[in-house]
Amino acid sequence: MDHIRPLPAYLVQRYHGWRATSFAENRSWYRRLADEGQRPRAMVISCCDSRVHVTSIFGAEQGEFFIHRNIANLVPPYEPDGDHHGTSAAVEFAVTSLKVAHLIVLGHSRCGGVQGCYHMCSGHAPELDEKTSFVGRWMDILRPGFARLPEGDDATRQQALEFEAVKVSLENLMTFPFIAERVESGDLSLHGLWNDIAEGGLMALDPRDGSFHPV
Amino acid sequence: MDHIRPLPAYLVQRYHGWRATSFAENRSWYRRLADEGQRPRAMVISCCDSRVHVTSIFGAEQGEFFIHRNIANLVPPYEPDGDHHGTSAAVEFAVTSLKVAHLIVLGHSRCGGVQGCYHMCSGHAPELDEKTSFVGRWMDILRPGFARLPEGDDATRQQALEFEAVKVSLENLMTFPFIAERVESGDLSLHGLWNDIAEGGLMALDPRDGSFHPV
Amino acid sequence: MDHIRPLPAYLVQRYHGWRATSFAENRSWYRRLADEGQRPRAMVISCCDSRVHVTSIFGAEQGEFFIHRNIANLVPPYEPDGDHHGTSAAVEFAVTSLKVAHLIVLGHSRCGGVQGCYHMCSGHAPELDEKTSFVGRWMDILRPGFARLPEGDDATRQQALEFEAVKVSLENLMTFPFIAERVESGDLSLHGLWNDIAEGGLMALDPRDGSFHPV
Amino acid sequence: MDHIRPLPAYLVQRYHGWRATSFAENRSWYRRLADEGQRPRAMVISCCDSRVHVTSIFGAEQGEFFIHRNIANLVPPYEPDGDHHGTSAAVEFAVTSLKVAHLIVLGHSRCGGVQGCYHMCSGHAPELDEKTSFVGRWMDILRPGFARLPEGDDATRQQALEFEAVKVSLENLMTFPFIAERVESGDLSLHGLWNDIAEGGLMALDPRDGSFHPV
Repeated sequence: MDHIRPLPAYLVQRYHGWRATSFAENRSWYRRLADEGQRPRAMVISCCDSRVHVTSIFGAEQGEFFIHRNIANLVPPYEPDGDHHGTSAAVEFAVTSLKVAHLIVLGHSRCGGVQGCYHMCSGHAPELDEKTSFVGRWMDILRPGFARLPEGDDATRQQALEFEAVKVSLENLMTFPFIAERVESGDLSLHGLWNDIAEGGLMALDPRDGSFHPV
Repeated sequence: MDHIRPLPAYLVQRYHGWRATSFAENRSWYRRLADEGQRPRAMVISCCDSRVHVTSIFGAEQGEFFIHRNIANLVPPYEPDGDHHGTSAAVEFAVTSLKVAHLIVLGHSRCGGVQGCYHMCSGHAPELDEKTSFVGRWMDILRPGFARLPEGDDATRQQALEFEAVKVSLENLMTFPFIAERVESGDLSLHGLWNDIAEGGLMALDPRDGSFHPV
Repeated sequence: MDHIRPLPAYLVQRYHGWRATSFAENRSWYRRLADEGQRPRAMVISCCDSRVHVTSIFGAEQGEFFIHRNIANLVPPYEPDGDHHGTSAAVEFAVTSLKVAHLIVLGHSRCGGVQGCYHMCSGHAPELDEKTSFVGRWMDILRPGFARLPEGDDATRQQALEFEAVKVSLENLMTFPFIAERVESGDLSLHGLWNDIAEGGLMALDPRDGSFHPV
Repeated sequence: MDHIRPLPAYLVQRYHGWRATSFAENRSWYRRLADEGQRPRAMVISCCDSRVHVTSIFGAEQGEFFIHRNIANLVPPYEPDGDHHGTSAAVEFAVTSLKVAHLIVLGHSRCGGVQGCYHMCSGHAPELDEKTSFVGRWMDILRPGFARLPEGDDATRQQALEFEAVKVSLENLMTFPFIAERVESGDLSLHGLWNDIAEGGLMALDPRDGSFHPV
């Protein structure tokens, strides 16, 4: 295990700072969360991007949100083929075991994954077209979104593709039988959001016409 | 799009609270992060579990950590087969595009995913053995960890399996050529951690003997 | 160059200790900071006093804070007269080149510079009144603060003068056109702090009434 | 005082982390430092650059180093003209009041101030030549260093100018009577250092030939 290194000192210090303050103030709550298990009200699927913090945007406390984060907040279609599907596993666990009430897909501006997809689908990123590109193959999920982009300049179309990343994921979620069923019965509701990093904005998908409006 | 619902009011309220306080105080920093792009120093792979908050444990600010969260903080082995691999895509993006300096796998106590794996491998969770179980097939990644568990009572072995989730992931990370190469050259360092939710503890993997010790 | 001596051994030893630990753990991050340049989020103006460590108080990591330290954390008024102005140069570089989002003036208790100013303005330190006294002429910047001190005993008035050192500096900062402009537009925010060394306290200037309250 | 804003939450959190850990562990030492005053053994003059941390390089504890930081770690010549001279005031206070034993000028690689001076002296930065440029007028101190640069390519000469920033400052320090006197008597020693940020290197000025060698 020569490849493992000690934790950098700045993270050790920050951890001890957290333990002495935030943890110390909520000790009994943490113990209860550990003893009784988690009971999150919502699942959020967001991007790994370091500038997107669902925990700060929603003031998330321990135990509130079941959070899956991947590149470009994508959900692939239902494909029970026996392979490893990390996103589908997270969704299945949240919905069938934890029985969350809300499932939120949170997109964001300046998304590097979406940008890569845009270049790839426009024929300007051959390295992402290669079979060995994990990012390229992951962004394939968003190809149906690229196909229906309106005409326009690149900047506009790229942002539109960020909106599509939210919409395609929500569509794919509905291909999972255990989700469609619970949405039908009213036990689960789906939500689409998009965070403007520069302006701190938050826009929600309007089901009536598929557009995004400030919340 | 009948399946899309408006954002619950409690989240709308919290978002506006964040925007009026934390965002307002840091407006120019957010704009700069948007304009100049992210430059995170570390990637963290942690569990979706609502009780695990890398952002609070490490006092993470916007722009600091590239965070991937999946069930049981697992990384599958390198498999460039052209399929969707969300975790591998996230790792590839962080290491080759963002050039993070640290890659941290953060496990935790009372992990529902690990517990499911333990029951499945012990023959007590037939529903997870089914081909259509996304959670089961995802937890297959951890089977090599179960195989080498020491004898002992169930509680001890289950916690040992949580440690294995960290170790198996770190081993699998080293099967990615672009990671092994950078670890070799000293440009990337790997770290293994385990968070005790009840006690607010943090233990680090000791490369000398594979055990975990408090940081 | 007979006046140059070799570095004392205790500092050589400490440097090697740092290089073998903290630097070694973060090698690629340092290289990146060197290659891509600094992008600090905040500038701090604090005292040279050996007991005031912004880097420990704020757990500052390499690359986070642009730090100017002078006697009594003072900023002179805007005076573009062609002379050397070290503090004004530092402020200009931080704001116009590095585009920091926050500018923090950090005062502290038991400040020797402020004490000297208090004695000088009270007529009890003639040596500081001399034209050749660099400390005296530097502390002239704080004379407007002394002029508005409330009545009271010496200890109270001296601490009040430490608060004034923060307030006068913040007022002077606003006389720089490039600062006033950015504060106006919301791109830069100013903050006043005072650190109690004995108690490890931190008080922030309240803009509503000019008083200081614990953060 | 509309221009003053509350301290950003991330700094409030970090401060409380420090207070609960590092401060709490050293409470009596801090109180003693406050009661008995500081007694630093060395003064360090370094750059404001966020990547240069004398406190981490030298593992500085509270009370050890009197630290002045300005753009490019420059000291102007002795000029007792009655104007504000922040650097000269800091040096005077450290040497005559605190009686430090060591005075260290710490330069560093990739210095933005030195780079600006290089461009200015080469005729490529007219904006720095303007009378109103605080950075330009401050960097005038380094002009004698530029004048004696050896021939060579720009990168080599720019790094040589970083070395000159250390040497010019040390020369200027010797123009202060209270310094020359104490150096003469052996009560004060001067040291010149240069920190390579990318490599974590530290080079010391060799008085024999004016070159820099690894410590």
